[in-house]
Amino acid sequence: MPTPADRPLLDANPLPDGLPSRLVEQLTFLAEVDKLKTVLRQSPLAAAPRRENDAEHSWHLALMVTVLAEYANEPIDVGHTVELVVVHDLVEIYAGDTPLYDDEGRLTQEQREREAADALFGLLPDDQARRLRAWWDEFEARATPEARFAKAMDRLQPLLLNWLAKGGTWRTPGVTADTVRSRKACVGEASAELGAVARTLIDEGERRGWVEPGHHNPDPVAG
Amino acid sequence: MPTPADRPLLDANPLPDGLPSRLVEQLTFLAEVDKLKTVLRQSPLAAAPRRENDAEHSWHLALMVTVLAEYANEPIDVGHTVELVVVHDLVEIYAGDTPLYDDEGRLTQEQREREAADALFGLLPDDQARRLRAWWDEFEARATPEARFAKAMDRLQPLLLNWLAKGGTWRTPGVTADTVRSRKACVGEASAELGAVARTLIDEGERRGWVEPGHHNPDPVAG
Repeated sequence: MPTPADRPLLDANPLPDGLPSRLVEQLTFLAEVDKLKTVLRQSPLAAAPRRENDAEHSWHLALMVTVLAEYANEPIDVGHTVELVVVHDLVEIYAGDTPLYDDEGRLTQEQREREAADALFGLLPDDQARRLRAWWDEFEARATPEARFAKAMDRLQPLLLNWLAKGGTWRTPGVTADTVRSRKACVGEASAELGAVARTLIDEGERRGWVEPGHHNPDPVAG
Repeated sequence: MPTPADRPLLDANPLPDGLPSRLVEQLTFLAEVDKLKTVLRQSPLAAAPRRENDAEHSWHLALMVTVLAEYANEPIDVGHTVELVVVHDLVEIYAGDTPLYDDEGRLTQEQREREAADALFGLLPDDQARRLRAWWDEFEARATPEARFAKAMDRLQPLLLNWLAKGGTWRTPGVTADTVRSRKACVGEASAELGAVARTLIDEGERRGWVEPGHHNPDPVAG
C-alpha cells in the first residue's frame, strides 16, 4: 500500500519545464490520485468476479447522488454532494481502506487518515488544498445535510452490491444482521425512504441466510 | 461485451416485493451501471500495470473538473460539469469503448451509442431518463460551456496518463504527433491554458520519441 513517504507518481516522469507552477502542482495532484484506482475495497462487483476499487466506488456514489437526491430528508445541494463523494475516499491512497467490519483497524483509522489528508491535499496549491480538505472534513463530520446524504450513499452502495452477491461482506466472520443494521442506521438518518429500503434488504437477506441472524454481537456505536 | 439484449444485473436477484416501483426502477439502473467498471479503455493506469476502465476514468474526470475549472475560457457551472462527466461514458456499457484512434469503429459509434442510451436510460423513471439522456446529448453536442469543458477533460486525462506512461496509446500504429494534436484541439477550445499544456506535452513527447513525428497522417476532422 502506498504511504505518504512515497514519491508522487509524477516525480518518476516530471512535466516539461516552463509550465506555470500552479498548474504543475495541480497536475501533480491529479496524477497522484490515479493511485485511488489501486485501493481495493471488500465489496464484490456485481458485474465481474473481483473486488471493487475506491475510484469505481466513488464514481458509483456520484451517480447515486444524482439519481436518489430526491429522497433526502433535508434539501441538499446536489452538485456539492457529488463533490463530497468524489473526494471522500482520497485519503485512502495513503491510509488504505479500513473495512467497515474491521474494529481493530478502525481504532487507528482517524489518525492515519488525517496524516494522509495532510500529505495528499498538500500537493495542491494552498487555496485548493484548503478547499478539498474542508470537503473531506465536512464529509467526515456529517454536520451538513450534504455530508449526511453522501455518507448514506457510501453505506447504501455496498449494501446494494452485497444484495447482488447474495451476501458479499455480510458473510464476514462475526458479522450478524444486527451488526449490519447498526452500520446502516445512518442511511435512514439522511433519507427515511432509503433507510426503509436498507432495512428491507437486510431483513430479507437475514431471512434467506445471507447473513448470520441478528440478536448477538450488535454494535451500538457504529454508523 | 454486454449488449442491450442482456438482462439487467438485478434480474438475476430481484429486489424483495413491496418496494415502491419508482425506487425499484432507480435501483435497477444503479445496479446495472456496475457494468461500467468492466468496460476497458486503451489508456494505461499510471499507478498499476493494467488498462483503465470507464468508471475509474469518469471519476478521474470529475476530480479534474473540480481542480481545473478555474481555467475554463467561459464561466462554467462546476457542479453541472461534474454531472456531465459522471454520465458521459454510460452508453459504453452497451456500446463498448471506441478507441480514439480507431477510425473504423468510429463510423458506427454514433448509432450504437444512441441505441445504448435508449436502452440504459430507459431503465430509469421517465423524468430521470429524460434528464440523464439530456445530459449525455449535451455532452456529445458540446454546445454549452460545461459540455466543452467536460470534453476537454475527457481528452486531457488520457494525455496525462500517456505522459506518465512515456507514450501509452500515442504508440498506436498509424498515430503521429499531428494525429494527437488534432484530437486534442478541443482542449484549447475550452481552455487556453490547458490547451497550451496539452501542446507542450505532445511537443515534448514527440521530441523524446514517445510518439511518431507529425507531418504525416494528420486527421483534420478529429476533435
